[in-house]
Amino acid sequence: MKALVYHGPGKKALEDRPMPEIRDAGDAIVKVSKTTICGTDLHILKGDVPSCEPGRILGHEGVGIIEKVGPGVTTMKPGDHVLISCITSCGKCDSCRKGMYSHCATGGWILGNRIDGTQAEYVRIPHAETSLYLIPQGMDEEAVVMLSDILPTGFECGVMNGKIKPGDTVAIVGAGPIGLAALLTAQFYAPSEIIMIDLDDNRLSVSKKFGATATVNSKNEDAAKRVMDMTEGRGVDVAIEAVGVPATFHLCEEIVAAGGTIANVGVHGVKVDLHLEKLWDRNITITTRLVDTVTTPMLLKTVRSKKIDPKSLITHRFTIDTILDAYETFGKAADTKALKVVIAAK
Amino acid sequence: MKALVYHGPGKKALEDRPMPEIRDAGDAIVKVSKTTICGTDLHILKGDVPSCEPGRILGHEGVGIIEKVGPGVTTMKPGDHVLISCITSCGKCDSCRKGMYSHCATGGWILGNRIDGTQAEYVRIPHAETSLYLIPQGMDEEAVVMLSDILPTGFECGVMNGKIKPGDTVAIVGAGPIGLAALLTAQFYAPSEIIMIDLDDNRLSVSKKFGATATVNSKNEDAAKRVMDMTEGRGVDVAIEAVGVPATFHLCEEIVAAGGTIANVGVHGVKVDLHLEKLWDRNITITTRLVDTVTTPMLLKTVRSKKIDPKSLITHRFTIDTILDAYETFGKAADTKALKVVIAAK
Amino acid sequence: MKALVYHGPGKKALEDRPMPEIRDAGDAIVKVSKTTICGTDLHILKGDVPSCEPGRILGHEGVGIIEKVGPGVTTMKPGDHVLISCITSCGKCDSCRKGMYSHCATGGWILGNRIDGTQAEYVRIPHAETSLYLIPQGMDEEAVVMLSDILPTGFECGVMNGKIKPGDTVAIVGAGPIGLAALLTAQFYAPSEIIMIDLDDNRLSVSKKFGATATVNSKNEDAAKRVMDMTEGRGVDVAIEAVGVPATFHLCEEIVAAGGTIANVGVHGVKVDLHLEKLWDRNITITTRLVDTVTTPMLLKTVRSKKIDPKSLITHRFTIDTILDAYETFGKAADTKALKVVIAAK
Amino acid sequence: MKALVYHGPGKKALEDRPMPEIRDAGDAIVKVSKTTICGTDLHILKGDVPSCEPGRILGHEGVGIIEKVGPGVTTMKPGDHVLISCITSCGKCDSCRKGMYSHCATGGWILGNRIDGTQAEYVRIPHAETSLYLIPQGMDEEAVVMLSDILPTGFECGVMNGKIKPGDTVAIVGAGPIGLAALLTAQFYAPSEIIMIDLDDNRLSVSKKFGATATVNSKNEDAAKRVMDMTEGRGVDVAIEAVGVPATFHLCEEIVAAGGTIANVGVHGVKVDLHLEKLWDRNITITTRLVDTVTTPMLLKTVRSKKIDPKSLITHRFTIDTILDAYETFGKAADTKALKVVIAAK
Repeated sequence: MKALVYHGPGKKALEDRPMPEIRDAGDAIVKVSKTTICGTDLHILKGDVPSCEPGRILGHEGVGIIEKVGPGVTTMKPGDHVLISCITSCGKCDSCRKGMYSHCATGGWILGNRIDGTQAEYVRIPHAETSLYLIPQGMDEEAVVMLSDILPTGFECGVMNGKIKPGDTVAIVGAGPIGLAALLTAQFYAPSEIIMIDLDDNRLSVSKKFGATATVNSKNEDAAKRVMDMTEGRGVDVAIEAVGVPATFHLCEEIVAAGGTIANVGVHGVKVDLHLEKLWDRNITITTRLVDTVTTPMLLKTVRSKKIDPKSLITHRFTIDTILDAYETFGKAADTKALKVVIAAK
Repeated sequence: MKALVYHGPGKKALEDRPMPEIRDAGDAIVKVSKTTICGTDLHILKGDVPSCEPGRILGHEGVGIIEKVGPGVTTMKPGDHVLISCITSCGKCDSCRKGMYSHCATGGWILGNRIDGTQAEYVRIPHAETSLYLIPQGMDEEAVVMLSDILPTGFECGVMNGKIKPGDTVAIVGAGPIGLAALLTAQFYAPSEIIMIDLDDNRLSVSKKFGATATVNSKNEDAAKRVMDMTEGRGVDVAIEAVGVPATFHLCEEIVAAGGTIANVGVHGVKVDLHLEKLWDRNITITTRLVDTVTTPMLLKTVRSKKIDPKSLITHRFTIDTILDAYETFGKAADTKALKVVIAAK
Repeated sequence: MKALVYHGPGKKALEDRPMPEIRDAGDAIVKVSKTTICGTDLHILKGDVPSCEPGRILGHEGVGIIEKVGPGVTTMKPGDHVLISCITSCGKCDSCRKGMYSHCATGGWILGNRIDGTQAEYVRIPHAETSLYLIPQGMDEEAVVMLSDILPTGFECGVMNGKIKPGDTVAIVGAGPIGLAALLTAQFYAPSEIIMIDLDDNRLSVSKKFGATATVNSKNEDAAKRVMDMTEGRGVDVAIEAVGVPATFHLCEEIVAAGGTIANVGVHGVKVDLHLEKLWDRNITITTRLVDTVTTPMLLKTVRSKKIDPKSLITHRFTIDTILDAYETFGKAADTKALKVVIAAK
Repeated sequence: MKALVYHGPGKKALEDRPMPEIRDAGDAIVKVSKTTICGTDLHILKGDVPSCEPGRILGHEGVGIIEKVGPGVTTMKPGDHVLISCITSCGKCDSCRKGMYSHCATGGWILGNRIDGTQAEYVRIPHAETSLYLIPQGMDEEAVVMLSDILPTGFECGVMNGKIKPGDTVAIVGAGPIGLAALLTAQFYAPSEIIMIDLDDNRLSVSKKFGATATVNSKNEDAAKRVMDMTEGRGVDVAIEAVGVPATFHLCEEIVAAGGTIANVGVHGVKVDLHLEKLWDRNITITTRLVDTVTTPMLLKTVRSKKIDPKSLITHRFTIDTILDAYETFGKAADTKALKVVIAAK
């Protein structure tokens, strides 16, 4: 079968690989109909993710049809149309029983990282019954594939951890796909203001269409000052960090109101300064989170009932044969204006 | 009347000052029967608190008898026995209506800071009805004066923000009065383990008597390593920072379990390093808080029903005439083994 | 001044009454610019509310301009444009400090009940600073007057107590003004389905325009059976009772899913049967509540940012001179299709 | 093997039955070392539980040693010492993923009801990995067997649903084993007062030893009046119903304070009157729940760290050979003063 294989920093290839096989009683083999590329895939290709070794098939997002199941699988069967979660969850370890699937003892983020992933014609999914989700009939696959990772990440790590409430003033720092996923799902809670902050005018303009009530280009102006002015010096109830560098985290520290929350979503490579000398008496909360995908069933319901349209995040479409072009397009997002790119089976 | 007056960094004096007077309709004048000294008073004397200007009567803790009330006070009257909260709350601004009294528009921590305080024979309390608490008959004044600041601070900023639950493993970094107040009130929630960490063997030995299940002297051993060993490499569910320096905050970062909480109580003078490169995917929460004293009525109930005995924090007793000795004793706590010192009216 | 006065069961009159005067330090006199009629006013007129004695000026909703304030009022002044809350809150008793203003020791629902109300040219508001809300500039008075009672009632007693979450299936039993207020504010939380149930086709048709995803006329069909069919036998996550009779509460018992909530909003005159023999193992929650109006500031923000348009509830407009016609119209809602009627000052 | 078999209303026998066998991949066979009798077993014997058919081995509580596991079981193995939960949970259906194991699609309360139970030498446990709990070394089996049902039931349905907080005033109606389990675990949250109400002086006297701060014998006095007097007319913050008849539920309605909670634990056979005409405006919450046993891991920690001693509930000890005597003793609790009876393997 065709598969996109990582061969060490800077190297990847579309290759022929053997079909995956059932190894454990709880496994399923899924024929992938749609997959997509995540910023994390680019991190792997830069060599930033040591747990991902050369020879690995990349990809942790996808939808498809179950081809085969192991003997322990009783609630799913070949032919079932399923969403593949980026997080593999056994459903029985302490972390899974607490709803923290991201820290599953034998799962977590392993697809396209510690085991072969979804950017291939077929993929083996361990703990299938608790890592796949049946897709209700009639749902659009392209909308659903956004629920593998990006939507739950923006929602759980940004919106839920940020505890957004009706009437709140929210700032989202970073208008890339994750920031936009947070923007879309923030609206589940009717905040009064959502201010998007980014360096890219195109993404800010997309943000407006997606529901931002104001945008700030931090290249052109002092974003902290601007947000404080917009909030009469009070700051924002919730600041969502969706970039992953010290400057953007620091901006969140500057704009969070007393009693507010900084919800970190960004993947950070270095430490940041936490200004406790200013924040110790400000009654703030800071959260970090690797997505648990506990909200996947709920997100399926909201997409199905048209509360949000995650398909709007898709800018480009490819097939598995042209997946190298998909990487090219996604990797040069500033030029191509790519948000999410979808790769279909054929 | 006698009062302890701040005269700039390093200078204080016991002086004769005019009696306070009612200024606003909601004021009360309280005759102070017991007060105490807080670590923050020492900070002021070091010159670390610029909002507190020379000439200020210090002190933000106390119990006493109402002497006079302003015309707007309808629910309290002269003769009432009251607890003075360290936080002044108007009860009507946005922050107060949300229960965040620490950020009251015209209150917050002002006693012994922006207005004259409680280390005197009499004190004026603005917004009296929402800043004083009637003391139920028969309660011990010494126990109650611990509820002005230290008990709600340890409880709200440490225990509540830490979301301690039955069965949890908790570490409290710092076994000074605030850390011990957190230790006492943590037991409201039946955690399985409470590990106290400090440099002072005496305080650790006191901690054992107060309910710690284990103690670690971080002078003698690698505290992080020790805590990880004690928790089989998992870390603690809740880490309470009760010191206020980078090293102790950093220790909390090292020992917090995935899904856990760091509740900062310490007053910090400089920034700390937040290792988001390690913590971004650990699903942790960090909180800061200036005490709101919203739990004062509840704490009065628990003291009254003998769930805790805050009087056990008191090591030394003085009168207003010997308050300079009280400062001397409290300031040299390592030698004197002082925890809280009580200063009685006469 | 002109005022609508209750004269015992079945009797009311538009009369000339003396202007109200400041009695307590915290009072304000408000010149009423808009008021409205509540279902509770009709209950009073039926003689169902013994606390309301003959001679009382009715009305507990309104917006206006402050005319005078007592000496204890420092944060509001004559000329301020204010919303009058149906709940009077002192801000300092135990209940108020807990956010349960409805049970304020010296307040609660007293306007137009135990003291003279808002269906007059002027009204005295006790505890003014914590019972009035400043109206931000530029807001429409008609929208704001809906926030005196109906919006917070639907929201707090129905939506918040019901704990509506994104993706939920909700049923609201009763499509009168309160049920519709619940319908409008339920959408703050992006439920997937909102089923409105009523006997009146007009109200069900209005419900559709207000965002209901389905409607059931319980006169024509077995509403319980229909809802169970619509939910594949599972029932609804949240059932909001907005009528106040045994039959509608019973319907909620029949349609609530395991793990779900029945949020009672209706004013009940007689007991209901609670079928614990069926519900004891169903993990359900039942709540009751007199509105606290703690969410008034938040609701003002959502109206201001156009998340909801409460003005859409208004069907008829009158002046204080024609208030008897307003009562006539509101009292015959089935015929007049009245929802909320607004009475302007002139 | 020996087993206690139900033979229809009023009939039971100790018989020889074939050893259970593995049927599904996730099954385990457990050799029972300790079991106990629940009030529900008596209900079955009265014929009140139609889902339990003649021929069924009774019992849903137990500890033992795993004898055999199915091919799908990877985290448990023969020889493991385990607690058997009264609730069977698959870990993968919607209810289980929400933590509502009681409503598991293929589990819930099935042991000793829909499938053979634990009052036997061996028992088959479906979904073993998510229905058994490994017992940490060194724990007392008698203490642990109290965690199969009674402790989580008192805790989850009574204490957690009641949202008991430090300083609260709590009433528990019914001082049988379940009421006492609620009493023990209520103390995890440091309530100020716990009032036990029962008709049996012995049980009330046991309650005192278990931590009740007051007791009321409702045979001798008007319990509602007494509780209202004890709370200065305010009522209790939390009323726990642990009997299951209309009179006791009604008592809870009478004594719950405004803003309080009635947590129903009792198994009811008939409907009760809910006095909404008095309660609609009292801001109360009523909850029902079949135990989910989601807190079993936490309870194991609190028992292990000696926060509670559930063994104190055990009054009598038997072996499987004398299990008919155990039933006799447990069934005449008023005379025998039995609380929990333990039945050992030999």
